[in-house]
Amino acid sequence: MILGALEAGGTKMVCAIGDEKGVIIDKTIIKTTSPDETMPNIINFFKDKKIDAFGICSFGPIDLNRNSATYGYITTTPKLQWANYNIVGTIQEAFNVPIGFDTDVNGAALGEATYGCTRDVLSSIYITVGTGIGVGFYHDGSLLHGMLHPEAGHIMLKRHPLDHGKSVCSYHENCFEGLASGTSIEARWKRKAYELADEKLVWEIEAYYIAHAIINYIVTLMPHRIVLGGGVMHQKQLFPLIRSNVKSMLNGYIKTPEIQDIDNYIVPASLDDNQAILGCFKLAMMELYNTNSQIK
Amino acid sequence: MILGALEAGGTKMVCAIGDEKGVIIDKTIIKTTSPDETMPNIINFFKDKKIDAFGICSFGPIDLNRNSATYGYITTTPKLQWANYNIVGTIQEAFNVPIGFDTDVNGAALGEATYGCTRDVLSSIYITVGTGIGVGFYHDGSLLHGMLHPEAGHIMLKRHPLDHGKSVCSYHENCFEGLASGTSIEARWKRKAYELADEKLVWEIEAYYIAHAIINYIVTLMPHRIVLGGGVMHQKQLFPLIRSNVKSMLNGYIKTPEIQDIDNYIVPASLDDNQAILGCFKLAMMELYNTNSQIK
Repeated sequence: MILGALEAGGTKMVCAIGDEKGVIIDKTIIKTTSPDETMPNIINFFKDKKIDAFGICSFGPIDLNRNSATYGYITTTPKLQWANYNIVGTIQEAFNVPIGFDTDVNGAALGEATYGCTRDVLSSIYITVGTGIGVGFYHDGSLLHGMLHPEAGHIMLKRHPLDHGKSVCSYHENCFEGLASGTSIEARWKRKAYELADEKLVWEIEAYYIAHAIINYIVTLMPHRIVLGGGVMHQKQLFPLIRSNVKSMLNGYIKTPEIQDIDNYIVPASLDDNQAILGCFKLAMMELYNTNSQIK
Repeated sequence: MILGALEAGGTKMVCAIGDEKGVIIDKTIIKTTSPDETMPNIINFFKDKKIDAFGICSFGPIDLNRNSATYGYITTTPKLQWANYNIVGTIQEAFNVPIGFDTDVNGAALGEATYGCTRDVLSSIYITVGTGIGVGFYHDGSLLHGMLHPEAGHIMLKRHPLDHGKSVCSYHENCFEGLASGTSIEARWKRKAYELADEKLVWEIEAYYIAHAIINYIVTLMPHRIVLGGGVMHQKQLFPLIRSNVKSMLNGYIKTPEIQDIDNYIVPASLDDNQAILGCFKLAMMELYNTNSQIK
C-alpha cells in the first residue's frame, strides 16, 4: 500500500510517501507561499506515485465537520492567502482517493500513538510548543473532537509572579500560547529561544507555564502519557524543570504509578520531527478502512 | 427489567429502583454514617426487589481500574470510615448481579446525556458546584477515564483581583474547587451561599471562577453543551453572569453555532436532582449489555 502524507504548516509543507508500517519512502519540503504557487508543487511531488490514500494534517483552524459545506477547508487563519482554502478538495480533485484530515497536532499525537513513544498506552496528549502552542488528545484509537477540534493552547493560566510581559495572543491576555509560545519568549526577551539557553529565569518561567498547563490537562483528561514537541522543546533543560514543577503543583493530589514514574510520564517527542507525517499515514489508513471514527 | 441505582454521597446515600426508560419506581435516602451501619440499610432497601443489574455512582476518589486489586473501592477519601472501602464488592456479595460503577459526577453527566438536557448532543460536560467541585465528560456513548477518573475540579485558575481569601483545598492554593466550591464561598464570606443571594460581589467572583474554568474545559474538550448542577448552582443569578464572562473571556476566539447560542450552551441541570440516579440506571444497562467501554 502506498500512502501520501501532507503536513501543512504556515511556513513549510512537508510531503512524504510511505507505507502502513510507517516507513518513509520519499520526502520533500515545499515552502508555503500562496495556494496558487504551493499547491501545484505539492501535487507534482505526489503525481504518478500511485497513492492509495492520503493523510493531511494542517495548521488551522480547520473545518473537520463532514456535514459542513466547508469541510476540508483551512478557515479563519491569519495567513490570509490560506483563509477559507479548500486544501482537502484540492488534493481530492487531483488524486481522487480517500483522504484523512486533522489538525497538525492531532496528527503528531496519532503518529506517536501509532509508531512512537505512546504506542504502549491507551491515552496520551501531544503538546507542541513552537511558534504557537497546540494540543492533541488521543484516546483508545480516536482523536478527540467536539464542536470544534481542541484549541487547548488557549487555556487561561495564572501568571508567573516574575513575568510582567505582554501576551502575544491577540485574543487573550493570559493564555498558554500568549505567555509561553516561542513567539512569546522572543517578544519578552528580545532574542530567540535557542539564543537564551543559558538564561535561568527564561526557563524557570517557561517551565512554570508548561507545568501549569500540564496540571490542567492531567486533571481534565487523565492521559497515560504526555509528549512535548515543537521548537521550544529542543531546549532539553526544560524537561527536569517541568517535571519538578508538575510534582510540586500537583502536591501529591494525584497518586498513580504514572505520576510516580514522572520521567516516563512527561517525555520528549520520539520520531525525529516525523511524528505528524507518520500520523498522516495512519490517518490515511483510517480513512481507507473507514475506521476514522473521530470526525463527527 | 428492574434496575438498582445507588448514588453514594458523603452525607447521604440515594437509593432508587427503576427501569430502562428512566422511570423511578421507588426511592429512599439513607444517611451516610459508617459502612457497618449504612450498607445494611442500603441492602435492606434493595432486598427481594429482583434487581437485574445495579449502577453505583460514588464520591471518591474511587478505583475504576478493573485490573486493580482494589477495583470497586472508595480509596483515599478524607471520610476515613469509607477510605479503602469495597462498595461494589459489598453490593455484589449481597445481590450477585452485574454492577456498573463510576464517579458521582460522571453518573450525572450520563444521566443528562441519556434522559436529560444533553441527550441531543454528541458530547457534553457536567460540572457540579457544591461542597466540592467535580466534572464529568461524556462523549459519544462513553465517559472519559484515563490513568484515573478526571479530577477537573482541581484545575489551577488565575485569581480574581478582588479575591484575597484562602483556598479551601488542602492541596492547592489556586484550584477551582479551592476557590469556588460552596465550602469556599462559606469560608470567604462567613455565610452559606443561599444566605448571600443579594451580595453582588459574591456572585461576580463566583461567576468569574466558573467562567474561567469553563473556558479551559471548552478549549480542551470542545463539548457540545455544558451543564451546571450542584447546590451553588441553585443561585440562578449565576447563569447570565457566567455566560457573559465566558463570552468576554473567549473574546471571539471560538466561533461556533453553539457559542453563538450561549443560553442553550451553558445550561442548568434538568432532572430535578435525579441526574446521577438516572445515570446509575444507564450504567447498570451498560454493564448488563457489556457496552460499558469506558472503564479500561
